[in-house]
Amino acid sequence: MQALYLQSGQLAFQPHHPQPTPQSGEALIRVRLAGICTTDLEIVKGYVPGFQGVLGHEFVGEVIASSNEGAPDEKWHGRRVVGSINLGCGLCPVCLGHGPEHCPQRRVLGIIQKDGVFADFVTLPLANLLEVPPEVPDEAAVFTEPLAAALRIREQVVVRPTAHAAVVGPGRLGLLVGQVLALAGTAVTMLGRTPPSLELPARLGLHTGLAHDFADNSFDLVVEATGNAAGFAQALRLVRPLGTLIFKSTYAGDSRLNLTKLVVGEITVVGSRCGPFAPALRLLAQDAVNVGALIDAEYPLAEGLAAMAHAAQPGVRKVLLRP
Amino acid sequence: MQALYLQSGQLAFQPHHPQPTPQSGEALIRVRLAGICTTDLEIVKGYVPGFQGVLGHEFVGEVIASSNEGAPDEKWHGRRVVGSINLGCGLCPVCLGHGPEHCPQRRVLGIIQKDGVFADFVTLPLANLLEVPPEVPDEAAVFTEPLAAALRIREQVVVRPTAHAAVVGPGRLGLLVGQVLALAGTAVTMLGRTPPSLELPARLGLHTGLAHDFADNSFDLVVEATGNAAGFAQALRLVRPLGTLIFKSTYAGDSRLNLTKLVVGEITVVGSRCGPFAPALRLLAQDAVNVGALIDAEYPLAEGLAAMAHAAQPGVRKVLLRP
Repeated sequence: MQALYLQSGQLAFQPHHPQPTPQSGEALIRVRLAGICTTDLEIVKGYVPGFQGVLGHEFVGEVIASSNEGAPDEKWHGRRVVGSINLGCGLCPVCLGHGPEHCPQRRVLGIIQKDGVFADFVTLPLANLLEVPPEVPDEAAVFTEPLAAALRIREQVVVRPTAHAAVVGPGRLGLLVGQVLALAGTAVTMLGRTPPSLELPARLGLHTGLAHDFADNSFDLVVEATGNAAGFAQALRLVRPLGTLIFKSTYAGDSRLNLTKLVVGEITVVGSRCGPFAPALRLLAQDAVNVGALIDAEYPLAEGLAAMAHAAQPGVRKVLLRP
Repeated sequence: MQALYLQSGQLAFQPHHPQPTPQSGEALIRVRLAGICTTDLEIVKGYVPGFQGVLGHEFVGEVIASSNEGAPDEKWHGRRVVGSINLGCGLCPVCLGHGPEHCPQRRVLGIIQKDGVFADFVTLPLANLLEVPPEVPDEAAVFTEPLAAALRIREQVVVRPTAHAAVVGPGRLGLLVGQVLALAGTAVTMLGRTPPSLELPARLGLHTGLAHDFADNSFDLVVEATGNAAGFAQALRLVRPLGTLIFKSTYAGDSRLNLTKLVVGEITVVGSRCGPFAPALRLLAQDAVNVGALIDAEYPLAEGLAAMAHAAQPGVRKVLLRP
C-alpha cells in the first residue's frame, strides 16, 4: 500500500509499504480522507523523539475487515468511521479510571508506537471507532479529531456565556476552538499577528483583532493555539488576573518565559489535548461548526510530501490527503 | 523612627526616617515584630522594578493611633493586630467583586507604593486589621501573613485527603504549605535538594525526600515553593498527568522551560499568592501549625541588613526583626 513513512527524522512516500493486519479486537480500515495537523509537522521536526512509522491521526475511513478473538466482527464491515487516537493498556488505574488518553503505556495513532493514517489502510481497535452519520460528508468527518480537541476545553473548564474570551492563533485548531467557544454564547475574539490571518475568522462571524493591539489583562479566558513558543507569553499577557489560560500548543523545544504574572495574577493554566469524538460528530451532524471553510487544499496521498510542505506555509489551515 | 529603606536597589538602615501619619480610615501601628520573606529578598534583587520605600510586609503590631474622617477610632487603640497587605481602590469591579488582592490600582504593603513594616511604625487601613487572640504570642502572630498565603491553596483547589501531595522547596513558605496540606489528612512529602534541608520537615512529622529520587509523575498535587527558577521544571516533572501544580514562587528573571508535558499531560497550573488572614489566626490559636520551629534568628531592627543577609543564606527559614 501507499504510505507516508517517517524514519530517522526523514519523511518519505513509500508506494509499496506493507499493509497492516488487524489484531484481535481491531478493524482494518481503508482511509478515505486524512488531514494534516500541526502536530504532524512538529513530529517531523522532532517533537516526539524516536517516533518511526506511518504519520497521521486525523481521518475518516471505511471498515473493510476485522478480527475478534480470531473471528471477524462483521457488523462493522462497510461502515464509514472515525477513530479516537489513544490506545491504552486497558488494565491500569488510569485506563480504568479515566480512559486511554493518559495511560503511561499508551500508543497513539501516528504519534507514539502506532502506525497512522497517511496510508491506504490503517488498523485500530473496534472500541476506538465511531460510525459517521450519513449527513456528515467525508470532508467534514475528517475534522472530527481536531474538533474533539477543541471540545476538550469545554470538558475542562466552565466557558461562561458572559466571559470575554480570546483565541491566540487563528489557525487550523484555533478556528475550531473559536467556533466551539462561540457556541456557548460567549463573545470570542480571534487574535492574529497579521491582518490577512484574520480574514477567515471574520468570514466565520467571529470577532477579530491583532494581538498586540490589546492591552494586558483584556480577557477572562484565553486559549493559546498558535503552535509556537511565543504564543504562551502573548496569552499570559492578555489574560486578566484570576483568569484562565488554556494551553493547546505542542511543539519541539523550550520557551523562555517570565512566570511572575502567573503567580501575582493567580492565573490558572490548563493544558488541553484530546477530546470527545461523539459530541464532535453531533456538532458536525448539526452543521453547527463550519469546517469546510478551513480546507485550503487536497492532495493525493502520492503527493503527500508536497501536501506537508503546503500545510507548513504561514496562513494555511487544513490540507487534506486522499489515498 | 528607625526603618529599612530601599532606594535605587540599595537597602539601607535609616535611624531617623520620618514617622508616617495615618490618613482617614487608617491606623498608626507600632511594629512589635516583623518577619523576612523571600519576596523581600527578591525585591532587593529587583523583582518589583521601581519600588522605593520601607521594605517588609509580615508583622504583628499594636495600634497606637487612628484617624476616621479626621476623628480617631479609639476602640482599636492598644489592640494587638496583624494586617492584610493589599490596599485596593475599593471602587473598581475587581475590588467590589473579589477584593483588593487584584485591584489594578492596588498598593501592597512593602511591595508596591506603600511603606512596609521594617520600621518602628507603619500605617494601614483599619479595614485591613485583625486583632490577634491573646493565646497567640507575637512569635506566632508574625507568621499570619505567610500562613494565610499557604491557606490560599485550599481556597483555590480541592486538596483531597487521599491525594499524594508534594511540596518542592522545604523553605520558610514550603514548610507552612506542607503543614496546611497535612491538616486535610493528605499524605504530604516535603522535597528538597539536600539531606540537611529535610531535617526540619522530618522533625515536623512530614514525609521527606530528595526531589531527584522521585520518578516522573509521582504526585497528584505538587506545590512549587522553591523561590527559584529551577523549581517549576522540577514540579512539572513530578506531577502526574491530569494532576495539579500550585505555583507559589515569585522571583526576578526568566525561566527556560519545555512546556510539552503541560499540554500532553493536561496539567493544571494554578498561580497562588495572598490568602485569608482570619483562618490563619484560627489555626495559630489552635496551635495546629508549628511556626516556632521555623525561627532561625531574631535581630534588632538596627541590625536589619545583617538579618537580611542571614535570611538569604541557603537553608535558613524565618529571620525576625524586632524594632
